[in-house]
Amino acid sequence: MRLSRYFLPVLKEDPKEAQIVSHRLMLRAGMIRQQAAGIYSWLPLGFKVLNRIEEIVHEEQQRAGHIPLLMPTLQTADLWRESGRYDAYGDEMLRITDRQKRDLLYGPTNEEMITDIFRSYVSSYKALPLTLYHIQWKFRDEMRPRFGVMRGREFLMKDGYNFDLTKEDALHAYNRHLVSYLRTYERMGLQAIPMRADSGPIGGDDTHEFLVLAETGESEVFYDSQITDLKFGDREIDYTSTEQCRSILEEFTSRYARTDETHDEAVFAEIPEERRRTARGIEVGQIFYFGTKYSEPMGATVVNEKGERVPVHMGSHGIGVSRLLGAIIEASHDEKGIIWPEGVTPFHVGIVNLKQGDASTDSASEALYRELKAAGLDPLYDDRDERAGAKFATMDLIGLPWRITIGPRGLAENKVELTSRRTGISEEMSPADAVERLKSIYQPVFEATYKG
Amino acid sequence: MRLSRYFLPVLKEDPKEAQIVSHRLMLRAGMIRQQAAGIYSWLPLGFKVLNRIEEIVHEEQQRAGHIPLLMPTLQTADLWRESGRYDAYGDEMLRITDRQKRDLLYGPTNEEMITDIFRSYVSSYKALPLTLYHIQWKFRDEMRPRFGVMRGREFLMKDGYNFDLTKEDALHAYNRHLVSYLRTYERMGLQAIPMRADSGPIGGDDTHEFLVLAETGESEVFYDSQITDLKFGDREIDYTSTEQCRSILEEFTSRYARTDETHDEAVFAEIPEERRRTARGIEVGQIFYFGTKYSEPMGATVVNEKGERVPVHMGSHGIGVSRLLGAIIEASHDEKGIIWPEGVTPFHVGIVNLKQGDASTDSASEALYRELKAAGLDPLYDDRDERAGAKFATMDLIGLPWRITIGPRGLAENKVELTSRRTGISEEMSPADAVERLKSIYQPVFEATYKG
Repeated sequence: MRLSRYFLPVLKEDPKEAQIVSHRLMLRAGMIRQQAAGIYSWLPLGFKVLNRIEEIVHEEQQRAGHIPLLMPTLQTADLWRESGRYDAYGDEMLRITDRQKRDLLYGPTNEEMITDIFRSYVSSYKALPLTLYHIQWKFRDEMRPRFGVMRGREFLMKDGYNFDLTKEDALHAYNRHLVSYLRTYERMGLQAIPMRADSGPIGGDDTHEFLVLAETGESEVFYDSQITDLKFGDREIDYTSTEQCRSILEEFTSRYARTDETHDEAVFAEIPEERRRTARGIEVGQIFYFGTKYSEPMGATVVNEKGERVPVHMGSHGIGVSRLLGAIIEASHDEKGIIWPEGVTPFHVGIVNLKQGDASTDSASEALYRELKAAGLDPLYDDRDERAGAKFATMDLIGLPWRITIGPRGLAENKVELTSRRTGISEEMSPADAVERLKSIYQPVFEATYKG
Repeated sequence: MRLSRYFLPVLKEDPKEAQIVSHRLMLRAGMIRQQAAGIYSWLPLGFKVLNRIEEIVHEEQQRAGHIPLLMPTLQTADLWRESGRYDAYGDEMLRITDRQKRDLLYGPTNEEMITDIFRSYVSSYKALPLTLYHIQWKFRDEMRPRFGVMRGREFLMKDGYNFDLTKEDALHAYNRHLVSYLRTYERMGLQAIPMRADSGPIGGDDTHEFLVLAETGESEVFYDSQITDLKFGDREIDYTSTEQCRSILEEFTSRYARTDETHDEAVFAEIPEERRRTARGIEVGQIFYFGTKYSEPMGATVVNEKGERVPVHMGSHGIGVSRLLGAIIEASHDEKGIIWPEGVTPFHVGIVNLKQGDASTDSASEALYRELKAAGLDPLYDDRDERAGAKFATMDLIGLPWRITIGPRGLAENKVELTSRRTGISEEMSPADAVERLKSIYQPVFEATYKG
């Protein structure tokens, strides 16, 4: 993309309404615009990152064998009356009356609807195991929406639901989700720690939240420092293997890690003092096993091998897709702006032409732009007639992890400068070498994709 | 995908509520499920086609130089009060009150919001031309939602908005959209004819609707039969060329083609009688030029080269993404089911194993499944323990354009059968040749993609 043809409305001033750094940087980098309290437009740069995150979530869900569908944003009140949650949900549910005076609501979650879909079509245990998921906009009418996309009202979420014949199978689905979530977050450059949590209005016994450590996190967290040394890496997983999934769950959950809701000071005290950590965390996902809580009242049953009709065992599993942009920025920024991990960056590299209008820097920049694209990379070429300082400031603010600077002095020796946004370190090299270097930098990102 | 692990709830019986063939077939093929009047879940097969259509729309928009973003589903009433449309829009607008008693609405279109975004950031003519678009769920509270996704209440639409300095530039944007739409629909295997139309509540002078001919179309249309001979084909277009865009517009709009709203019997009578056609059409898109209708009242102005502040010239451009599934099916089906065009099919080919459980057909089917995937194709392997007749009926119903049948008799001679859904013609060949044949069939589909 050529910046002169893009729509990237960066702000020079810090917006007053932003209390936390991700909100401030998303507004300043022209990623979002508030349209109403807690309701945002995703401007082109923000939309591009949102898409990238959505893509990773889709890929990792499908790698784990889960099936995508799409449920609507609006639901009928009747469905929620069946489960008993219509009245229980409270003021956070946005209730709507249509022109025929029917009660609708903007879905805050989809346990009822997916259970309804399941019971309408499935009647035999042979269709199990089954996990269906979608990524859809949801609405929770928060009393005090704030912190930008971190606590918005209209937000994008992946929510998945497993249907299993037995508790044992459903616990495998739980473990499988935990494993796939670890991989999902790592691909985004995040360390998200699974912590034992409280089940809240979803219900159920078993639940883990995934938390990203950040000073601005909404939850206080307590953990054994050994947990932050764990890496998922590029392990090959057979998601149908109960043994593999269970052993990874054990590896990642055997050390103490809890939110303030489930924290137990006595257990925490047993950890050697030098490993005890107290910090703040941002919740980016949660998994639940809740058994027959919805299947029983809603009649989601199957006939088992013995010919008996039994309610299915279920769980639900969420990833806060839009909120992840905020979480990633909270975890990865400096005073100049955002620092995108390679896995989610909106553009792979920025090209800064130091002397726009100069025949040789212009043609070298154009050539590099084309070669990067030919190599399968997605560059943002700052071709505006602006001072070098302004171009650098924009690149630093929007946080592309790599920048190539092209100026007349270097070009005389066939050199450009490749700079890491994270370390600030620059290296001179030929344009061809810069392309090769970037290809190898992004190789792991491309290799991590799942094509089905 | 292995069918035994998929979620494809096909129905044996014709659903009573479906009055038109696309609605009936989408329900029977397990593509959609009604959750409330005019509100649907997109089951996995339907979601897959929806995605494919969305992808084509995104690619062709970006090929034409348009920039994607994403506006929220909910909007404030105040924005619509500014343009004067809040009261004018009538009962089709779904009005909502949140817990703070603020008036919101579920967006039926986005002229106001995009104008608000534009005026908030753009002040110089240098940022022009600019076309922003999004693909987002919208809501129109139809009095009588019917015909499945053809006239739903919650529907997915691509809507784009151009901002130009002059009327001339804005008319180029109009022409550019018309050209890009022709290409978009052809990639979906559709012939959509641009017809002069009525502007309705969007306003403006210039507008064309794109109509797909189908018996169940909601509009009566009148056209010169020569128009159906026109093909866009694989022309290379420079979308910045006003000349190229204008000449294609002239080519596709110079012959008589109008809906009943704009039909002129006297002009129609001038066409030689043997070329006059009356038929029915389904609207799948519409483009508008409306000048300063929104920019003036809402203050979307730029400073021009002379330093004068002038309102921008705008247009808007819509494609009915979810409705397109219905339109494609109306245009392409037979008594057995859907016939997907290669450009939008959910799976490229179906594999029918005639003797599931037989070691040799099972292993040949598995090998073929893997080879098709390795060739970059997306097969659906019917690995269920079902009779051949049931497997064929499912494949015919869901409409994959190609089927490979594997049975013990053919395998003895290393032969499988490749069958065209459209013609019903089968050919025997080796599995390796079937893979090669399918690669060459889908080559044009892959080549038509736009990677930016």
